[in-house]
Amino acid sequence: MVMNKLKKPSICGCMLDFSREEITTHMREAEVDLLEWRLDVHIRQHSIEDALTAFSLFSSESRLPFLVTNRPVREGGSFDGGEWRRIEVLQRAVDAGAEWVDLEPDVPESELNWFRMKKASVLLSHHEMNDTPATAALQERVAKMLERKPDVIKIATVAREQEDNLRVLGLIPWAQKEFGTDIIAFCMGDVGRWTRIACVAMGSPWTYVQMPGQTRAAPGQLLARDMRAIFKAMGML
Amino acid sequence: MVMNKLKKPSICGCMLDFSREEITTHMREAEVDLLEWRLDVHIRQHSIEDALTAFSLFSSESRLPFLVTNRPVREGGSFDGGEWRRIEVLQRAVDAGAEWVDLEPDVPESELNWFRMKKASVLLSHHEMNDTPATAALQERVAKMLERKPDVIKIATVAREQEDNLRVLGLIPWAQKEFGTDIIAFCMGDVGRWTRIACVAMGSPWTYVQMPGQTRAAPGQLLARDMRAIFKAMGML
Repeated sequence: MVMNKLKKPSICGCMLDFSREEITTHMREAEVDLLEWRLDVHIRQHSIEDALTAFSLFSSESRLPFLVTNRPVREGGSFDGGEWRRIEVLQRAVDAGAEWVDLEPDVPESELNWFRMKKASVLLSHHEMNDTPATAALQERVAKMLERKPDVIKIATVAREQEDNLRVLGLIPWAQKEFGTDIIAFCMGDVGRWTRIACVAMGSPWTYVQMPGQTRAAPGQLLARDMRAIFKAMGML
Repeated sequence: MVMNKLKKPSICGCMLDFSREEITTHMREAEVDLLEWRLDVHIRQHSIEDALTAFSLFSSESRLPFLVTNRPVREGGSFDGGEWRRIEVLQRAVDAGAEWVDLEPDVPESELNWFRMKKASVLLSHHEMNDTPATAALQERVAKMLERKPDVIKIATVAREQEDNLRVLGLIPWAQKEFGTDIIAFCMGDVGRWTRIACVAMGSPWTYVQMPGQTRAAPGQLLARDMRAIFKAMGML
């Protein structure tokens, strides 16, 4: 049985280029609550056919829920094929049983509707890979993303100084008050590392961690077991 | 030999009502870097004479540095005697060898000078036990405290909502930019618990923890071993 209901706070483990065998092992990983499968990285390392074949894993019993991501190059990812092909890979994953899909904020409404119709949960995500915009720009971005009515949104920016961290974390209570919704908002990079912990203490549904045997999906990421130890020590688990 | 130089980030363990024997054991506690001895609590539980006698511990070899605090009732502490008597206890502690003294921001300049003359390091601390003031009020408070030229200042407020946490943490980079100094600033209470970790990630010299066998000195405090595990998992130790 797949656990569809995520408790809060949850830990999302990032799988970059695991083989099919490694995914099979980790999809019952006790240290995380959700698995993000970075299909763009998997496809670059293996092939699109290998990914599509591996989707049969979604019909396995007793596994964690999967969040499938196929990040394009323009958003800091590895998928360099056409846009329709990129979305089609995600559709195939959802058809095969993936519970969550990560989409960019500019995804056409028709595509979004397709995923909704399939009862997939939608995460809209936006990344700023160089710095952290001002509060007004960040809030405008969040408001626009929420207009699309996704299940969760994620904002990740690169922190260059501590004020960047506070500005991004400030989006969490702001979105709670303005829209009554919990968003994922944290900073990447070493300066922002602590926000990956703080965001869930402030209400973010989950935080991203590095899986054992995988490199970091983004700078500043902590290991799954370390994040778990931290939440435990903080009395959050 | 007493370790006078504190590395960053440091963990300060709070001793409330340990007996002399317990203090002897804990003053070599490996999990903390500094020990705050809440003399006001010790005096209430034991007696002023017991405290004064126990100051001979400061001449022990191989111990952690001590921060002595004699918090008055008006600041949320337990010392209900006269003001001169309160300061005198701290002076006796410093004369006996305590390295750090915690003083309130309204301490007369003559008293502050006495501690400076004795080469004690001075921590000026301010507590808001009910809520968290607005940013302008907090900044004014910090600026006034820094005018006294203490070695470190500490601001601790009670967080009622997440914005309170962000406002208080924002004082750390603000003081770094305005005055070139690292301050201790965090929030008490369950809502503010994560700021006890974040503050040191942002530059605060130390954070306060509960010692084994002691109750919490303030709401939201983590155990020494848990804070240590968190710093380790974050790659900060």
